[in-house]
Amino acid sequence: MKTKELAVQAKRASRKLATANAATKNRALVAMAEALERRSAEILVENADDIAEGRRKGLSASLIDRLLLDEARLHGIAASLRDIAALPDPVGEVIEGWRTPEGLQIEKVRVPFGVVAVVYEARPNVTVDAAALCIKTGNAVILRGGSDAFRSNRILAEVITGAAIEAGLPAECIQFVASRDRGVLVELLQLRDQIDLVIPRGGEALKEFLLEHSKVPVIYAAGGNCHVYVDETADLKHALDITINAKCQRPGVCNAAESLLVHEAVAAEFLPVVVKALDERSVKLHVDARTRELVGETDVKVLRATEKHYATEFLGLEMAIKVVAGLDEAIEHIAKYGTGHSEAIVTRDLEASRRFAEGVDAAAVYINASTRFTDGGVFGFGAEIGISTQKLHARGPLALRELTAMKYVVTGRGHVR
Amino acid sequence: MKTKELAVQAKRASRKLATANAATKNRALVAMAEALERRSAEILVENADDIAEGRRKGLSASLIDRLLLDEARLHGIAASLRDIAALPDPVGEVIEGWRTPEGLQIEKVRVPFGVVAVVYEARPNVTVDAAALCIKTGNAVILRGGSDAFRSNRILAEVITGAAIEAGLPAECIQFVASRDRGVLVELLQLRDQIDLVIPRGGEALKEFLLEHSKVPVIYAAGGNCHVYVDETADLKHALDITINAKCQRPGVCNAAESLLVHEAVAAEFLPVVVKALDERSVKLHVDARTRELVGETDVKVLRATEKHYATEFLGLEMAIKVVAGLDEAIEHIAKYGTGHSEAIVTRDLEASRRFAEGVDAAAVYINASTRFTDGGVFGFGAEIGISTQKLHARGPLALRELTAMKYVVTGRGHVR
Repeated sequence: MKTKELAVQAKRASRKLATANAATKNRALVAMAEALERRSAEILVENADDIAEGRRKGLSASLIDRLLLDEARLHGIAASLRDIAALPDPVGEVIEGWRTPEGLQIEKVRVPFGVVAVVYEARPNVTVDAAALCIKTGNAVILRGGSDAFRSNRILAEVITGAAIEAGLPAECIQFVASRDRGVLVELLQLRDQIDLVIPRGGEALKEFLLEHSKVPVIYAAGGNCHVYVDETADLKHALDITINAKCQRPGVCNAAESLLVHEAVAAEFLPVVVKALDERSVKLHVDARTRELVGETDVKVLRATEKHYATEFLGLEMAIKVVAGLDEAIEHIAKYGTGHSEAIVTRDLEASRRFAEGVDAAAVYINASTRFTDGGVFGFGAEIGISTQKLHARGPLALRELTAMKYVVTGRGHVR
Repeated sequence: MKTKELAVQAKRASRKLATANAATKNRALVAMAEALERRSAEILVENADDIAEGRRKGLSASLIDRLLLDEARLHGIAASLRDIAALPDPVGEVIEGWRTPEGLQIEKVRVPFGVVAVVYEARPNVTVDAAALCIKTGNAVILRGGSDAFRSNRILAEVITGAAIEAGLPAECIQFVASRDRGVLVELLQLRDQIDLVIPRGGEALKEFLLEHSKVPVIYAAGGNCHVYVDETADLKHALDITINAKCQRPGVCNAAESLLVHEAVAAEFLPVVVKALDERSVKLHVDARTRELVGETDVKVLRATEKHYATEFLGLEMAIKVVAGLDEAIEHIAKYGTGHSEAIVTRDLEASRRFAEGVDAAAVYINASTRFTDGGVFGFGAEIGISTQKLHARGPLALRELTAMKYVVTGRGHVR
């Protein structure tokens, strides 16, 4: 099928889906979960082919692991479908409403975008998650997954699409791009009349590709170069807990901290302790000259930090440390190196907390809490398709509400201007 | 000054402006109004040079009129500055807030975007309006006006910038691009790290240019191909009033109606009346075969409508008319030809009104009211920088709130995951 035809079909389906009841959409999500469990054998056969090809191509062990499906993982995916079905439907919410002086009744109503294209890399569970979140929010979805998981994605899309149609959703509301060709992606990105939104889930290379090619609006999720700043008045026990948690609890994710900034007034007391604790957890440390001096007495091996380290999202057990003269320097440093994701201050001083919260430009600013909390589940949104670091439309967790747009419905009695 | 340097300066200024009090910002807006009135002679001299050049270049009378400033228009611009100063400041609004089960306090807070670039065509008042709306919302602004109004824009920017700085705002919070070179605009559109948002105010050519070149997020305001649909049960007096108002009250604007769709059940009664009324107001009519038949008895001269007419935003006293079999055909027609701006139904039937409101994908859907109401002032927003027809971030009038983004401020007591 030609790319444009696929998008035209999605658009047509989206107009029916936009007015589907929550009950119908939820029934479809549950049917999708059942179908995944019922047809697991078929799915695992296709996945095994992807894995075999991946091994032949010499994919790394961690990529193979991301690619791998098994019964347990399929049950996990099915469980998340049931979770999404149980969430409230955001479509139709009257966000606000008022009457104008001339008597017009205005309502600002939450509506689906229409057609959302999700462009993603290896993990096949995204095929199901992304489709489910779009269906739940009344959007038709175009799925364009990475080529390494091509067979897995194709069978998953086929299984859930069948279930959705049986449950009464319009055919063509889930469109799988059955091509590994990047040219097809470029074609998709031109279809501004058919596709309302593109959401990439992938690294910087994918982001650059979309910046270059997309004429459709995009919500970008950039990396997270997150900081913990320990202020002059910090509770140093909290500072230690938060630093360790933000760096070590799950170092490979975007809301993990990459740099620690310490106020010079507490550096001598705090740094030897935190450096030792991080070292015990095998964190490789890149530190400035003052930190090196202060931890000289300990037997921890530290490396010299350069500009590059402050700018790096390590995504692993590695951290940069810097002593700062105070809050202003911390805010400046974060403005220079941060990516606008999640930034934390540890302080007991009210004014410092307010100045940090106002002065740091990020999706989430934390006062006495770990950066690791930036998550749709933790925030109470139930599910998310990613974390946005752009400011247009949605910032932070992209959950159900963020997958909707709005319209004004204005009711008069023959009103004219 | 190099383009990037200008944007870097704007970014720096934006960080100070983001935390400026409403009182300071409002004082600056009033000072700008006073400066415009005080220095009107200087401004009119520069404007006269633009007008003279425009005449030499053979600009049309309507373009010359858009370009022209005089004492009255300057007072109008100053008055709108004072109006904007009087509006509430959206920055700092806590949009919502809640506590998570683990005791984290989460607040979703309205914040400025940072740096907004406004790209516009001839009218010099946009220089002042755009700057005022951005300053009010705590955004630094980069102004890039059309070359025909270059001297007028430059002096206006100089006058208001001086006033803003005197009133205590950071220098460099208003940046005027002192170049007519389109290459400079292309450079600006690459500066994703410095510029947070681009707002174009211009026609389709400018939109296409930005789609091609911008790596900075854009809010597009497309044209308005708006419809009035007269349903089977319509109050035909209302239908007549609304059609005339939507077409004739101000035909050159984006929320004016371009096409009239009439349910076949009322076509014979309604069409001769409305066609006569439109003809009396000198509206040129492009009609389908059935309409032509029905109005054959009258002495109104009508033209044959083609696909092209249904797709045209006439922006003048010209309208297309079509008889439809019912609501579904009307919705289909609007989906095919509409631009997602403003669409009206005239009906007495509740179910028809709901189906139209849900089924039509537009920024504003009107039930028994004219499309002409899509306006920040009418909606009660006080001022607007344009009407968005895109779905990402803001749809409909782009007022103060729409010029802001949000951040999460999360407060804990040493919380870790």
